[in-house]
Amino acid sequence: MRIIKKISEMQDLSRQARLARKRIGVVPTMGFLHAGHTSLIDRARTEADLLIVTLFVNPTQFAPHEDLDTYPRDFEQDCKLCEDHGVDVLFAPPAEEMYHPDHSVWVNEEKLSGKLCGASRPAFFRGVCTVVSKLFNITLPDFAVFGQKDAQQALIIKRMVRDLNFPVEIITAPLIREEGGLAMSSRNRYLSREERLNALSISQALKQVENHIVEFHINNKQKIMESISKHITNAGGIVDYVSIYDAETLDDISEKSSKILIACAATFGKARLIDNVVLDLDADK
Amino acid sequence: MRIIKKISEMQDLSRQARLARKRIGVVPTMGFLHAGHTSLIDRARTEADLLIVTLFVNPTQFAPHEDLDTYPRDFEQDCKLCEDHGVDVLFAPPAEEMYHPDHSVWVNEEKLSGKLCGASRPAFFRGVCTVVSKLFNITLPDFAVFGQKDAQQALIIKRMVRDLNFPVEIITAPLIREEGGLAMSSRNRYLSREERLNALSISQALKQVENHIVEFHINNKQKIMESISKHITNAGGIVDYVSIYDAETLDDISEKSSKILIACAATFGKARLIDNVVLDLDADK
Repeated sequence: MRIIKKISEMQDLSRQARLARKRIGVVPTMGFLHAGHTSLIDRARTEADLLIVTLFVNPTQFAPHEDLDTYPRDFEQDCKLCEDHGVDVLFAPPAEEMYHPDHSVWVNEEKLSGKLCGASRPAFFRGVCTVVSKLFNITLPDFAVFGQKDAQQALIIKRMVRDLNFPVEIITAPLIREEGGLAMSSRNRYLSREERLNALSISQALKQVENHIVEFHINNKQKIMESISKHITNAGGIVDYVSIYDAETLDDISEKSSKILIACAATFGKARLIDNVVLDLDADK
Repeated sequence: MRIIKKISEMQDLSRQARLARKRIGVVPTMGFLHAGHTSLIDRARTEADLLIVTLFVNPTQFAPHEDLDTYPRDFEQDCKLCEDHGVDVLFAPPAEEMYHPDHSVWVNEEKLSGKLCGASRPAFFRGVCTVVSKLFNITLPDFAVFGQKDAQQALIIKRMVRDLNFPVEIITAPLIREEGGLAMSSRNRYLSREERLNALSISQALKQVENHIVEFHINNKQKIMESISKHITNAGGIVDYVSIYDAETLDDISEKSSKILIACAATFGKARLIDNVVLDLDADK
């Protein structure tokens, strides 16, 4: 596996691979890789000739009060995992390589970004869209794999690819859970043993709705949101949001919605955790 | 010459050309081509294997009160000019091909865009950066040629390419003037015979400064701006701005500035005209 830190070197390598008609797949990550990430890598490996993982803790998607400085890092372990999963290139640029001191160009999604995580993290998706645009232009992929864990992010990246015509296919891969149900996240590392147990309330609450899918109806949307929220609060979590939207458009659900996204964010201790389920109403009819 | 209106067709053709190791050059235009445009095309022709001209009157760079609806168009004449100048592909998509009804992703330059034309046209460069990003992703060029006539635009596009890492080289080609000195512009078409004569005051005023280059000094910046402004106003023009900045950074000029941009915008009748000169102070030392 080759480790690249320079943008120009990465771009040259990708350009050469393109000329050699290799299919380039990229998996953008912030490192501290876990089974969620490796599932994305494995998915990409199945159809990439050149498999690139990017590792960059992107400062512009953190607000000043957020956890940029304490975000968990383990470069050696990340390298080992990438190597084990057949990654060809790990692109891990330093922050000063990615952002000039007078950086001034931003990519901003202005409709889907205002909800869910974007409501409490207003600059978050601007940072995400900007860095993903940069990574696409640097790695020149045919396709990129994002996780359904970050459901809103995946939708926004798809919208960005559509609206800016990036010649990149976006693949969304399933959310991966720990044995108890907790959604895999690098931020799970922040949880104490007790908090980790309490945090199970998130996936449990979502699971309950998923299991009662036949009973889901627009009219009980409010009740469902309240019940999830209560379940998490009772376990000691501080709920940021519990939201139900059309899973394709993030519009309010209507009788026409066939896929329903139920998403939530809650803080346990120092960890802000997100999770979601998608109900496919058509599949149950 | 091939005329393409579909994004997917253009992107496929460019992708094939890339695989065939052709060097792709693009000249983005809003049509109604004149000698200014053909000079850009000729410049691009010298080093492109595949020369693409894009013709798109981009609605998102016009404010509601501006001249989108009346912007001059002559598709047949544009085709003829492109053919005469050896263009391989004219990419001329309709507006509905370029913007989805729920388009929501924008590329925004936030430092250089606030000055000069950006001050009186606040959404202008957002529209320009967004459409140029789209055109780059659609035509996949190795290089693109922009005119020095739109000096601020050229700087902003260069900044965008740097900050988003577009794998595209930006070439800025010289400003072309009519015989009397008026900067070539599709909007010159709006001028009556008398207005056209009066509008010569813009280039005359700039020329006077250019000719007195040895006398230029930071300390007489204000005096120079006032003199240009007065010259244009006396000829019946309504001055939007006359500005003097460092030509590389658009910062205020300092003793370190070696290239000085003197730029102005003024309205004669229905035509908002822009013009500029660059003083190369080093060249005269």
